[in-house]
Amino acid sequence: MTKFEVTILGCGSAMPTTLHNPPSQLVDINNKLFMIDCGEGTQLQMRRFKTRIGKLHSVFISHLHGDHIFGLPGLISTLSLLGRKNDLNIYAHKEIDFLIAPLAAYMGRHLTFKVNIIPLNPYKEEVIFESRSIKISSFPLNHRIDTNGFIFEEKESPRHIIREMIEFHQIPFTHIYDIKNGADFVKPDGEVIKNDILTYSGNPAKRYAYCSDTAYAPEIIPYIANVDLLYHEATFAESELLRAKETYHSTARQAAEIAKEANVKKLVIGHYSSRYNELGFLLKEAITVFPETELANEGKIFEL
Amino acid sequence: MTKFEVTILGCGSAMPTTLHNPPSQLVDINNKLFMIDCGEGTQLQMRRFKTRIGKLHSVFISHLHGDHIFGLPGLISTLSLLGRKNDLNIYAHKEIDFLIAPLAAYMGRHLTFKVNIIPLNPYKEEVIFESRSIKISSFPLNHRIDTNGFIFEEKESPRHIIREMIEFHQIPFTHIYDIKNGADFVKPDGEVIKNDILTYSGNPAKRYAYCSDTAYAPEIIPYIANVDLLYHEATFAESELLRAKETYHSTARQAAEIAKEANVKKLVIGHYSSRYNELGFLLKEAITVFPETELANEGKIFEL
Repeated sequence: MTKFEVTILGCGSAMPTTLHNPPSQLVDINNKLFMIDCGEGTQLQMRRFKTRIGKLHSVFISHLHGDHIFGLPGLISTLSLLGRKNDLNIYAHKEIDFLIAPLAAYMGRHLTFKVNIIPLNPYKEEVIFESRSIKISSFPLNHRIDTNGFIFEEKESPRHIIREMIEFHQIPFTHIYDIKNGADFVKPDGEVIKNDILTYSGNPAKRYAYCSDTAYAPEIIPYIANVDLLYHEATFAESELLRAKETYHSTARQAAEIAKEANVKKLVIGHYSSRYNELGFLLKEAITVFPETELANEGKIFEL
Repeated sequence: MTKFEVTILGCGSAMPTTLHNPPSQLVDINNKLFMIDCGEGTQLQMRRFKTRIGKLHSVFISHLHGDHIFGLPGLISTLSLLGRKNDLNIYAHKEIDFLIAPLAAYMGRHLTFKVNIIPLNPYKEEVIFESRSIKISSFPLNHRIDTNGFIFEEKESPRHIIREMIEFHQIPFTHIYDIKNGADFVKPDGEVIKNDILTYSGNPAKRYAYCSDTAYAPEIIPYIANVDLLYHEATFAESELLRAKETYHSTARQAAEIAKEANVKKLVIGHYSSRYNELGFLLKEAITVFPETELANEGKIFEL
């Protein structure tokens, strides 16, 4: 069973409040930490919630509004004080250079690691990171400036081989890898033992989708269809529908409609407008359309 | 009686902790707010302690280490969201342009006000701001990079006129201003009434000195002599004297020695190293040398 969980570091919006921090999340897949967005104070939130900054793998920035990026200088600076050696890849729209390049130049030789900007494509879906077990892609959202959502997915794990079958058919060690990946076993006498007799299916591949900030955008449904967990912004209540449209944000009801249409397993809403002190009514609004909804909150962990 | 108080927003040092925020303070003189240093999360601290962001007059940056400046992008961005119209003057070493210029360029027409960088002189004392009632100066400290301390002082208020004397000598309204500022009154018959018969002295001019970050630097004593309140960094305890020297920081005992030599009324120590969870021993160390010492802490307000 792999570990796959999302920790909310901040789920407020542009205007900071005493209730919510600016946007940031950590996606932990088998102790690799992927950060999504990095609002001011994100490194302080990491400390508060005892996340392991040393495990930070890379950073994914949805768009270049200040509340999503102003924690980067402090984060980079602290990683350097801690002596990080590995490159830090930041997946973001290329204009983020306005913030990173002068910082890197100013810190110069004091920076203990290299920062790489890996530009996002704001126009179409793209795989942006891939390892043996993880795939991360980005896709366009609909906001006032170029904005991308992200899909974090495990690759399906290899099939599990049935130990007794190894002994029974005297399968040599050298064949195990291929069989786990679906091959049949051909015995020395030519007899073919079908793979599904030798194995059972591996762990299902889980998928997490992050959609913030965005207007109501049904065109994203194909990208996020059937994910195990969807984080979708719900900056406003339906009573502020006009304001949501004007600012290219979503209402709680719209987030729930996207979740329903995309047939996701669970929805988490966040990116709350600073006008709301109490969020129960946003949850209620979403649940009416999509019952499997939860509210994001700082420090909350969602397991997939 | 004028209002003159200092609110601590952050009194930690470079490495953030869950106990202390990076450096920032607000000096409130008659409801004008002057910010000193602006570490990451400063605007969030302003909200936490219910300080009035709309009253922010200007910002004073001691030096360009990240923990003293990385709150500026968020602060500037929020002031703009709030629709600030007045210019924001930032008094700082000119190299701060690396952070501000790209931000201003990126925000462009979205920035509702103008940011002016007013360069500090790292080599000598200079008056950097002066109004009818307030004077602010900067002077060199001794740190790894150019660093300045600041003195905030009220000007001595005009003398108070004794109401009964106005009637008794039939002083015309047009003479009051001059008399408050020290003039004698010459009666129509040529008789001279001395000013000290007509008035008593105005409110004493109070002074606040900020010294962080700095190595033990007795050469600063002439600048800060006799101030009512001195904030002096005490990053380390005396047991870390070597580390203090290496990093151009001070120990609590050294801060107290400066306070004593400068004959200040009260000392506040801060800029604590992240290694200390408990600060009583720093206070004890300082008090041995200078009894009128207090510990800084987030949210604490010191009145002058």
